[in-house]
Amino acid sequence: MTTEINAPAGTKIVLGSNQYGKAEVRLVKITRDTDRHQIQDLNVTSQLHGDFTAAHTDGDNGRVVPTDTQKNTVYGLARNGVDAIEEFLVQLGDHFTGEFEWITGGRWAAQQFFWDRINDHDHAFSQNKSEIRTAVLEIGPDGEKSIVAGLEGLTVLKSTGSEFHGFPVDKYTTLKETTDRILATDVTARWRYNPEAVEAGIDYDAVYSSVRSLMLTQFAQTHSYALQQSMYNMGQAVLEAHPEIAEIKMSLPNKHHFLVDLEVFGQDNPNEVFFAADRPYGLIEATLSREGTEANHPVWANIPAFI
Amino acid sequence: MTTEINAPAGTKIVLGSNQYGKAEVRLVKITRDTDRHQIQDLNVTSQLHGDFTAAHTDGDNGRVVPTDTQKNTVYGLARNGVDAIEEFLVQLGDHFTGEFEWITGGRWAAQQFFWDRINDHDHAFSQNKSEIRTAVLEIGPDGEKSIVAGLEGLTVLKSTGSEFHGFPVDKYTTLKETTDRILATDVTARWRYNPEAVEAGIDYDAVYSSVRSLMLTQFAQTHSYALQQSMYNMGQAVLEAHPEIAEIKMSLPNKHHFLVDLEVFGQDNPNEVFFAADRPYGLIEATLSREGTEANHPVWANIPAFI
Amino acid sequence: MTTEINAPAGTKIVLGSNQYGKAEVRLVKITRDTDRHQIQDLNVTSQLHGDFTAAHTDGDNGRVVPTDTQKNTVYGLARNGVDAIEEFLVQLGDHFTGEFEWITGGRWAAQQFFWDRINDHDHAFSQNKSEIRTAVLEIGPDGEKSIVAGLEGLTVLKSTGSEFHGFPVDKYTTLKETTDRILATDVTARWRYNPEAVEAGIDYDAVYSSVRSLMLTQFAQTHSYALQQSMYNMGQAVLEAHPEIAEIKMSLPNKHHFLVDLEVFGQDNPNEVFFAADRPYGLIEATLSREGTEANHPVWANIPAFI
Amino acid sequence: MTTEINAPAGTKIVLGSNQYGKAEVRLVKITRDTDRHQIQDLNVTSQLHGDFTAAHTDGDNGRVVPTDTQKNTVYGLARNGVDAIEEFLVQLGDHFTGEFEWITGGRWAAQQFFWDRINDHDHAFSQNKSEIRTAVLEIGPDGEKSIVAGLEGLTVLKSTGSEFHGFPVDKYTTLKETTDRILATDVTARWRYNPEAVEAGIDYDAVYSSVRSLMLTQFAQTHSYALQQSMYNMGQAVLEAHPEIAEIKMSLPNKHHFLVDLEVFGQDNPNEVFFAADRPYGLIEATLSREGTEANHPVWANIPAFI
Repeated sequence: MTTEINAPAGTKIVLGSNQYGKAEVRLVKITRDTDRHQIQDLNVTSQLHGDFTAAHTDGDNGRVVPTDTQKNTVYGLARNGVDAIEEFLVQLGDHFTGEFEWITGGRWAAQQFFWDRINDHDHAFSQNKSEIRTAVLEIGPDGEKSIVAGLEGLTVLKSTGSEFHGFPVDKYTTLKETTDRILATDVTARWRYNPEAVEAGIDYDAVYSSVRSLMLTQFAQTHSYALQQSMYNMGQAVLEAHPEIAEIKMSLPNKHHFLVDLEVFGQDNPNEVFFAADRPYGLIEATLSREGTEANHPVWANIPAFI
Repeated sequence: MTTEINAPAGTKIVLGSNQYGKAEVRLVKITRDTDRHQIQDLNVTSQLHGDFTAAHTDGDNGRVVPTDTQKNTVYGLARNGVDAIEEFLVQLGDHFTGEFEWITGGRWAAQQFFWDRINDHDHAFSQNKSEIRTAVLEIGPDGEKSIVAGLEGLTVLKSTGSEFHGFPVDKYTTLKETTDRILATDVTARWRYNPEAVEAGIDYDAVYSSVRSLMLTQFAQTHSYALQQSMYNMGQAVLEAHPEIAEIKMSLPNKHHFLVDLEVFGQDNPNEVFFAADRPYGLIEATLSREGTEANHPVWANIPAFI
Repeated sequence: MTTEINAPAGTKIVLGSNQYGKAEVRLVKITRDTDRHQIQDLNVTSQLHGDFTAAHTDGDNGRVVPTDTQKNTVYGLARNGVDAIEEFLVQLGDHFTGEFEWITGGRWAAQQFFWDRINDHDHAFSQNKSEIRTAVLEIGPDGEKSIVAGLEGLTVLKSTGSEFHGFPVDKYTTLKETTDRILATDVTARWRYNPEAVEAGIDYDAVYSSVRSLMLTQFAQTHSYALQQSMYNMGQAVLEAHPEIAEIKMSLPNKHHFLVDLEVFGQDNPNEVFFAADRPYGLIEATLSREGTEANHPVWANIPAFI
Repeated sequence: MTTEINAPAGTKIVLGSNQYGKAEVRLVKITRDTDRHQIQDLNVTSQLHGDFTAAHTDGDNGRVVPTDTQKNTVYGLARNGVDAIEEFLVQLGDHFTGEFEWITGGRWAAQQFFWDRINDHDHAFSQNKSEIRTAVLEIGPDGEKSIVAGLEGLTVLKSTGSEFHGFPVDKYTTLKETTDRILATDVTARWRYNPEAVEAGIDYDAVYSSVRSLMLTQFAQTHSYALQQSMYNMGQAVLEAHPEIAEIKMSLPNKHHFLVDLEVFGQDNPNEVFFAADRPYGLIEATLSREGTEANHPVWANIPAFI
């Protein structure tokens, strides 16, 4: 999508990759076919790809589908129902690439917020803020659909079963080794589906639930010698259980809980009283994939993200 | 606590109410008497009252118990166990007013964050962010303890069963009447306990659970003609069930969900597709109390708060 | 504004103080009488007082001027021009109390965001985020207007000229005395104008600029032995210079900058390298007023605030 | 950095790109060689690259330089002085890659917060929050240093001189064309320096000031027919003036200011009264580079970022 432009003498400037759209369209869809309502609560972003050089160089909007129109389209398509967010994004992507010949692709993303029924009530809900579900669809210039699902903000903690020792020591090392510490993190995970599986059809909701559950279970069960190890086990369990997933990336802050020195007050502190620090924090990030999977798939370049 | 000070000629300036302390001491207390750990996750603020005039006028810190010491004391006292946050605040307040003769009172506050066990694991938890529990203790100059408990950030929504009509109309009125709208809010509630009940002893954890449950149930069950009505029913249910509560204040944003006009796209929209707006929002606030309860109890003046 | 209500047998519940309205109406007003535009960027909240018992107990909205109407009124009145935010709030208050006989008072508040011209351009601006200006107007049931102006988010720091010693020591004290530390805070200040001065007319913009300048100057010039002392000097300077101000409240976090121990790395650290901590932080709050000023003026009960 | 690992039967899982370190080390460095102090206020992140497979698969920390050590190193190196943040990051990167043979590269990033002197005082400052300066250094496995500088949070607005028309219309289009609207955005920009210029030495502070100034000037001077056009002019001016910059990416939200319809209240509104909306917002992103510049330079994959 790189386009050459005549620039002032002595410099030739080119417009490289670019996109535009409407971000954070807050959509609440109530399904009320029966008295027992369903709620879908989304935050949707639509960004279009194509040759928009004239808008940049001349302010010519002949190809600029307004971001306002993109917003309207989110609401219009939602009228037909919103199931898995990945499928809703595909509807959006298909619409824009089908409707406007110069739209060669794009990026559509959603956050989903969860709600629980209050006392199993038909139309009263309380928000479950434990985590946010995410999805990104990118349609490439060749029409290939890349789908990355994920979750963010899932905060977990182990009050024991975590050690940290055996690390290299240099003159800047003051950390003491420990065989018992609190391990806590906010899980952000993103997994990319195999294009073949996307083509064949995926039960995205079921996979989401399973991935979430596997990650929680692995975090709980791993006796951890490094947050890297807990992370690896979490990702491995996901890839082993879900052949439809090609690779998974995780970004885990190590939320430090420092044991408070109570000795000076004449008290012991057998791993009971901790100071939960804000900053700085450790930050552990990795990709796990299947052998043979393409490294650095282009979809990742356009995801607010980590290595 | 008002103190006169000699001020420059022509002006006599007095130091009025004042307090100081350490805010947001992040305390995580693990109880590990058995393999099945308990976690208490708190954000504690300690502020002292007394005559600190010399610090203000002369920088004389002879009476200024360092805020660092207040922080240390939070951790030191936590070593002995943290049960209901209200009781922990009382331990803090008793300590400071007992330890330093010139500390005549103070304000101690806490937020509590909740954790659920992962798969009923003994020492692995995931944070339950549905709401935050709060408590404030104020010890007045006469030694009276005022305790205000509360919750914040409890987000609820009804997808029907809410109407709004019959309101006055003037030249600035453009709102249409409706017999079916989404009603959504983030509940912030604070309730003050009767001093007699505080004296006699309260099962603060049990009352908290009950208040939370009553408010959710009333929100769900009320067929609402005004958010004021839902709020009133919520508060009334709490006061009726809990004689130990003298009064309750609630602050409820009306989180607007606007029905999207799809007609222009050739679609109907029978209350299914909504735009969830950020700002502005309605804001509905009230106090419910028992007849004969003192209005404007002084504790409220020192609570980040509403009318 | 306390109203008795028939409650279930055995309990008599009363509706106490209450208010409702529209919060955070984001208003940008461009004055374009000439090519040199002016910008006013406000966040306005309107809350009405009166007897709204029927809305609470019966969902009867006969007296409930919609919050949507309040929002519209903000925009409608802004068309006539927005000068000092205090004066704009008075226009709002006068409008609502004059237009609806049952509106006996209310609370109107605004934040103002500042903009600088880019290269002295006529209509291009960059936001100056150094601080936010605030104002609150409360009209009481007797029609009295209370006006509280303020600023928030003004972050200041002294890299020397701050000491802290001479404080009491107990078993929880680990802080070392220091004769040279960093002193840093985010200034939140609110000052209440004399009702007589309000009546006579005040140049609110000029007083705001002067108060801001006096506070900065006093913070800079005070060789500080306690943040309390810096705060006191700041407030005193304001009251001495501005007879139209009855009292001022300040809330100053002590933003700790901890000297990093570099000795273990073989380095000295003569007050050069600091860790800027997030939480916990000190919190220093006080009221300064003139002798004879009413303590605990009721307007403060309705300001998100401190003692 | 992809490493093969023996995985359970039927699956072969590989650890792909990964990194770890300490994020958001808050460093305040005071230079006090003379009575006129200088302040550097940074938020530094250090992340290391290398073969850390054993930590992931076996919890073997033999190569895991603790994140705590990385934090300490930030403070230790800061003792020697902090000039341009880019140069400080290079010191960090050189240290880690030089100190530990298995550290083959890494990513070091910083935010810088600005301070102004209060009344030209020697050691009293107020924070200038108009924008945040950023920098990222990545050292690749071949030792090549990529440096990306930037700024974020620079909020600008034009009250006229912005039009939007000529866009395509479909059934979802409801937006009206306009020849006069408010144009407002928060500028996030990141520019990558030529490796040759990095090698030869760059006056990073001077370039930063110049880029900031050029962007403000272009934003102000461009009579805009599309935010894309304003953005393009901003980037073009930067590339034309600074041969040491290879490419620049910008991400500009279109912060909508909607003209309020006052006609229903009997008022006109000649582009004077606006509602400043929060969400959704337009989002305009692009890369400008010089002809022949490598597209998709790998450093961008590791920057929280846009296309």
